[in-house]
Amino acid sequence: MKKIIPILVCAFAVMAFDKSIHLLNVRADKSELIKMEKEFSDYVQQQGIPAGFEKYAAEDAVINRNGNLIKGREAINKFYQTTRSKNDKLVWAADFADVSASGDMGYTYGNYTYTAVDSAGNAKEYKGIFHTVWKRQKDGSWKFVYD
Amino acid sequence: MKKIIPILVCAFAVMAFDKSIHLLNVRADKSELIKMEKEFSDYVQQQGIPAGFEKYAAEDAVINRNGNLIKGREAINKFYQTTRSKNDKLVWAADFADVSASGDMGYTYGNYTYTAVDSAGNAKEYKGIFHTVWKRQKDGSWKFVYD
Repeated sequence: MKKIIPILVCAFAVMAFDKSIHLLNVRADKSELIKMEKEFSDYVQQQGIPAGFEKYAAEDAVINRNGNLIKGREAINKFYQTTRSKNDKLVWAADFADVSASGDMGYTYGNYTYTAVDSAGNAKEYKGIFHTVWKRQKDGSWKFVYD
Repeated sequence: MKKIIPILVCAFAVMAFDKSIHLLNVRADKSELIKMEKEFSDYVQQQGIPAGFEKYAAEDAVINRNGNLIKGREAINKFYQTTRSKNDKLVWAADFADVSASGDMGYTYGNYTYTAVDSAGNAKEYKGIFHTVWKRQKDGSWKFVYD
């Protein structure tokens, strides 16, 4: 019986340590997600909307566009390839991020500006709210699962 | 040094046990979120939209309605009190749920049907996709944080 007590003490100490590490990580993960959104938006500026949404989508990502769910990275890429002009611009930044205690799921929201550019070069600006759910992948990277 | 080894073995055993419990919980938590959406939808049928959204909102919940963010349970309740007719109906069910490994954050999506009923009793039906982010509260209950 006496041997059990230090083992239990050690077990609880490990769990408490584990928990405090988690709390520190949550704060780090939140700023990581804000940075991820910036990286994602910057990539879209440089490489275009279809390439950006392909790079940052999880394989099973889902997007809701005009009340329709588009499921899977391939379908998302096809959707953007066929519905967006090459000159369209999309810029955004997250105002808010929260992350689960386990650091494997999080969500963000903020403002986006979409500039549609027609073949004559006329630009029309649309502003709105974006919202993204992110999931950490097996390789440690964040990819979006819902947008 | 010899004393350290059983302590380390015990620490890793606790962490491995903790992880396998997590994996079992994730499966349970997913069905819990599907049930939460049903409970939420049922409550809205019985008590109306403002009361339902008040009951299931976290204190710092945010909803995006028509491109505007409405922040906080009180503001959400006020929004529904002032924009919805008492006879309007809203029904939904989740097709999908996923939950973080720590079981404190999850998200769902599925179809909703909104029936707007005017003062003359004329009903008009709108169908769409809903999406909710849930967060487990300190008392163990789930509340939505983004809708």
